[in-house]
Amino acid sequence: MSGTVKDHIDYAYELDLAIKPESSVPIINREYGVFSGPGVPLFSIGGGYFRHALQQILVNFHSRRGYLVVETPLIASSELFKLSGHMDFYKSNMYILNIEDREFVLKPMNCPYHLLIFLNHIARFRSKVKLPFKIFEIGRVHRFEPSGSLYGLLRVRGFTQDDAHIITFESDTLNVILNVFDEIKLLLESVFNLPISQDNIRIRLSLSDKNLIGKDFMGTIEEWSSAEDTLEKITSIIAEKYGIKASIGVGEAAFYGPKIDIIMTLKSSSGVKEWQMGTIQFDFNLPRRFKIYDIIREVYGDNRVYIIHRALIGSIERFLGGYLEHYRGRLPLALAPIQVAIIAIKTGDWKVDEVILDKTINIREKLLSNGLRVGLKESTKTSLPGDIRSIESTIKPPIIIYIGAREVRESILTISIFSHKEMKRISKTIKYSSLDEALTELENIIRGEEEGVIKISGFAPRIPADLSHML
Amino acid sequence: MSGTVKDHIDYAYELDLAIKPESSVPIINREYGVFSGPGVPLFSIGGGYFRHALQQILVNFHSRRGYLVVETPLIASSELFKLSGHMDFYKSNMYILNIEDREFVLKPMNCPYHLLIFLNHIARFRSKVKLPFKIFEIGRVHRFEPSGSLYGLLRVRGFTQDDAHIITFESDTLNVILNVFDEIKLLLESVFNLPISQDNIRIRLSLSDKNLIGKDFMGTIEEWSSAEDTLEKITSIIAEKYGIKASIGVGEAAFYGPKIDIIMTLKSSSGVKEWQMGTIQFDFNLPRRFKIYDIIREVYGDNRVYIIHRALIGSIERFLGGYLEHYRGRLPLALAPIQVAIIAIKTGDWKVDEVILDKTINIREKLLSNGLRVGLKESTKTSLPGDIRSIESTIKPPIIIYIGAREVRESILTISIFSHKEMKRISKTIKYSSLDEALTELENIIRGEEEGVIKISGFAPRIPADLSHML
Repeated sequence: MSGTVKDHIDYAYELDLAIKPESSVPIINREYGVFSGPGVPLFSIGGGYFRHALQQILVNFHSRRGYLVVETPLIASSELFKLSGHMDFYKSNMYILNIEDREFVLKPMNCPYHLLIFLNHIARFRSKVKLPFKIFEIGRVHRFEPSGSLYGLLRVRGFTQDDAHIITFESDTLNVILNVFDEIKLLLESVFNLPISQDNIRIRLSLSDKNLIGKDFMGTIEEWSSAEDTLEKITSIIAEKYGIKASIGVGEAAFYGPKIDIIMTLKSSSGVKEWQMGTIQFDFNLPRRFKIYDIIREVYGDNRVYIIHRALIGSIERFLGGYLEHYRGRLPLALAPIQVAIIAIKTGDWKVDEVILDKTINIREKLLSNGLRVGLKESTKTSLPGDIRSIESTIKPPIIIYIGAREVRESILTISIFSHKEMKRISKTIKYSSLDEALTELENIIRGEEEGVIKISGFAPRIPADLSHML
Repeated sequence: MSGTVKDHIDYAYELDLAIKPESSVPIINREYGVFSGPGVPLFSIGGGYFRHALQQILVNFHSRRGYLVVETPLIASSELFKLSGHMDFYKSNMYILNIEDREFVLKPMNCPYHLLIFLNHIARFRSKVKLPFKIFEIGRVHRFEPSGSLYGLLRVRGFTQDDAHIITFESDTLNVILNVFDEIKLLLESVFNLPISQDNIRIRLSLSDKNLIGKDFMGTIEEWSSAEDTLEKITSIIAEKYGIKASIGVGEAAFYGPKIDIIMTLKSSSGVKEWQMGTIQFDFNLPRRFKIYDIIREVYGDNRVYIIHRALIGSIERFLGGYLEHYRGRLPLALAPIQVAIIAIKTGDWKVDEVILDKTINIREKLLSNGLRVGLKESTKTSLPGDIRSIESTIKPPIIIYIGAREVRESILTISIFSHKEMKRISKTIKYSSLDEALTELENIIRGEEEGVIKISGFAPRIPADLSHML
């Protein structure tokens, strides 16, 4: 059982990668932040926008998918984690606080709080609470990791999960889990430009060893059989639907239930790596400890329910690390620190330069008031190559607008948009008769880049900033 | 000096209220959550939506006001708080964690991290960093409070600040602080329906005792004089501009700088209470400890800068407690758990009831897809009064839509909108020829309720949920 203890709901940090990362550690890119202590990434300005934009997307996406959205405390009385069992088998990974004569902990996971909320609701509202009950949180959790095992953004001491728990009747399980796969697909494709195919995703189903149920694997034969049957069915549906590979590991389940892990292949400077991302885990431990089966039977007259933990990307920190490596520091527009850079290419002729600067400032103001993060940089024809090299090796804005003598003369904007699909910039010229007209077309281009986010979240976060100093 | 230690940047928790709360403790309303341990409020589903909606509003509002938005770690190496001085004079209020052979703390405030980010940026981008440098965070902080001093949502052990730090040249200080007052006004009026007048706001200026500068008050005479001159000027401008009262307390400044506190008068079941809300505090301690003066002189050739801490509402938890008392549990539409309740008043005639239910379900689906939090309740003519009493004493949705026999017969919707201004519900009838038409008008009414939020944040959060079980 010792091998399974470490990964209890440990979506974010399972490092059983097929190809272990070697020469390169996904550190925090300095446009996004710095490490302020061992295992403590400090998200600075770029990272702050990434986090806030992604959180707004995740909250609105999940709420549209029927998840109830909560935000639970960061500390908890250790009684709660005694109840859940964590104080027995996970204590060495938990931060303990002694307050007066009581013991508190920094929560290492969100599940006990989510179950408390479910219990509060069902105790008060009884059968008016409908299953599946789906509860989502952007959960900031803390776990002790020995300093030797800290590993860039892959393994830190405080991280953020896109964490949900689903309480569902057995009969709805198949649909519930297929929905989770839809969510993984929607999120990866629409927000992150990571299309699902056999080139970049595989799934791994971890089952019990039937002979050890009741011993190393807790729960009843019936629970395990029905859950594993469903998971096997789902695994083949998913494998066929998306044309991806699936593997099955008998005896590799966690002690508390079987699970499916989603493993992504991402590129990196040291080659291709596999990353543990989302996970879907059954739990036969917590419902017993929180007496969920009992109250559900009392309220609904049927206690055949499952409690499922799931995460779509796992840890925001870890995902950011992997993503920035894969796309070489290029976030999609909705999440990028500077979304649009405006480069004024001055000529030395003050009359022309005045017009150039006037237009760039106009564009900056308009974009800011539309809620975008912009940077304005004054350059010249000679310094332009160096400036571009510098920008493209650091902050990497998805859209760059150039305004120089030619642009002013011909009433055009030269625009360069980074395409994640082609992994290169694509140029575009906007011809205008009034600058307002050009700005409307620019807004349309930006909307186009935000389309995927709007599709799944109902809106695209617009958290404006003038970050010119970072250019 | 001992009297000033407790309130170091302690915007949220200064309890020097003119009228101490007595008979009633602003507890967490059970629609919003429960206490899961002493001083640990667990925001459940209603509270989760309140928090997320408010956070989206605050982030987008501040970003539109020129603040850079970050999200810093919850733990820190104690070295950081040694540097800031907190480990000397604030340690007994801090939660300490021993990890391997290092000491970590749960951050009790955000300032050291904000200054680190400023230093990172100025070290790298030098004079491209423009002052005023304004940095904002929804900061979750933890402070030890003895269990005897815990006090409902007023004094908890983990809370959330709308926290910002501003680094500004002395010459810009007046404008910078007037802008902060604009922000307080905008937020209170546009989001919370709390108009600023002498009936509900006063300000209190806390100055040094000039004879004790260099002793009880750290810093130079020049720093204090210039800062206090500015604050006095601002106090009279503000008092005149808003017609509110101002008081001055000589010798009442914190040891690290003078400050202005914003004190609100809110009603409660036990009468009228004063609440410490926003604060604007100068700090002459941190810039010395973080060598801000030195680097600013090096970069800009002028080191006359101020570091200002500010919060508009202080603590989200505390504000929620006070607000729910003042408005008797009624949040504005943008923040309410259930925004729109739909009541189907069934008649017993199945043909009529089918039409009624069909319409209510249609409306629910449309509102959900527009991103609103709704609840649908089936009632009857006889049970209606009891149902309304129950709804109005618990979840209190800002908008209630009634659909019964008359509404179906006459093609109308009967709508009841709660007005914070008049502290009562106002009825409205929408006459329609197609339900789509009614839904468009309904959306316009909702947009009207969101107007203030859209004005200051550029959008209104739409985090949908079907919370019918809470009705």
